[in-house]
Amino acid sequence: MPAEALQIGLLLFPNLTQLDLTGPLQVFSRIPGATVHLVAKTLAPVPSDTVLALLPTTTFAQCPQLDVICVPGGAGTDELLGDDETLEFLRGQAAGARFVTSVCTGSLVLGAAGLLRGYRATSHWSAIKHLAALGAIPTETRVCIDRDRITGGGVTAGIDFALTLASILADRTTAEAIQLILEYNPAPPFDAGSPASAPPAVVAMLDQRLVAARQRRADAVSRAAARLEAAASAQA
Amino acid sequence: MPAEALQIGLLLFPNLTQLDLTGPLQVFSRIPGATVHLVAKTLAPVPSDTVLALLPTTTFAQCPQLDVICVPGGAGTDELLGDDETLEFLRGQAAGARFVTSVCTGSLVLGAAGLLRGYRATSHWSAIKHLAALGAIPTETRVCIDRDRITGGGVTAGIDFALTLASILADRTTAEAIQLILEYNPAPPFDAGSPASAPPAVVAMLDQRLVAARQRRADAVSRAAARLEAAASAQA
Repeated sequence: MPAEALQIGLLLFPNLTQLDLTGPLQVFSRIPGATVHLVAKTLAPVPSDTVLALLPTTTFAQCPQLDVICVPGGAGTDELLGDDETLEFLRGQAAGARFVTSVCTGSLVLGAAGLLRGYRATSHWSAIKHLAALGAIPTETRVCIDRDRITGGGVTAGIDFALTLASILADRTTAEAIQLILEYNPAPPFDAGSPASAPPAVVAMLDQRLVAARQRRADAVSRAAARLEAAASAQA
Repeated sequence: MPAEALQIGLLLFPNLTQLDLTGPLQVFSRIPGATVHLVAKTLAPVPSDTVLALLPTTTFAQCPQLDVICVPGGAGTDELLGDDETLEFLRGQAAGARFVTSVCTGSLVLGAAGLLRGYRATSHWSAIKHLAALGAIPTETRVCIDRDRITGGGVTAGIDFALTLASILADRTTAEAIQLILEYNPAPPFDAGSPASAPPAVVAMLDQRLVAARQRRADAVSRAAARLEAAASAQA
């Protein structure tokens, strides 16, 4: 256990997918010596994609330098891709962090902040293709480790991601003990967790339902990619 | 999709294990036509086992009749086993609910309320043996369905439980679509999710660490069992 507390921060923002956050939060909270922060612009409750509003524990301004910064995903990431205050906060923290991480479409936000240039990264299956436009190398895997960037796949991949990170931050035995106390011995009642395994009719139904959301995301990524390019040109 | 909204309520109480709640919450929130309530004694934020405080959406007094009542688990359930206000609320809701459910040690609370007499039920691996003292039939399974009582195992079993329940409340295709959007295609990095699979040293370490908590739970269950028996004698 480190003599000094390990500072782990999870970003809160409107319309995040709460399980992207709460899965890793459960795991991180069990790492001996870890202090976990829920960081938002202000201390006001942050609406999630469910009826659960999330209470921040600190603000961008008050947040200590983090050892681990983690960005969860959700529909709300579309908005964040163009949010300078958030992208600036992430860049500032990333400069001093040991690990820069995400779950689900949180990786698009890291990408929009210019933090994944040249790094392999993953995302929700519906969003992974967008990583390339933001300078990352899309990598279809549930947990993607490339140097100090660690990204998880969609929503529930956050649990696998967090256990992997726990084994790096502490050790394998600690991660296994966390897995045991959380009885993480998954037994999905159906085999529909990826587009490859789900019944084609289910994939088609979701594709249909997500048309508008996909367009919003594609537009947000295009704008973020253009901004990244402009910033790079300005620097050159 | 039902013409009338399906009312699903999750119980909030101090020191619950937040992932017991937030896993099922994520799944339930995606069931078409479902309205989800986070029910507590008052609207004040409820501390969880992590830094995340949980904001109720309604109170015992204001809560509509629920179709599904779900009690999550955590160390805080020890206190609930003797909490008349909570047990009375659960009995009242259970009388009109279609399904009476729990995750993790939430089943001990259902048991203490007298709602599992003669029902098969499951719980967190460390607590399942206590179900017998509360009149239930301990059943080692990740999701246990006995008539209108549906109970899930420890913490992360809440996701498997909720997907199972979604398939019952809606249909299998709906549950599969929820599984797909949540990318619930688990790949635990270690094989330590149950005492049977975890390395013996990890099980021994946790056993050691949980000595005091186990004693508190055993005492709380003994008192609850005595109260159940006294209530049964008084009725006889």
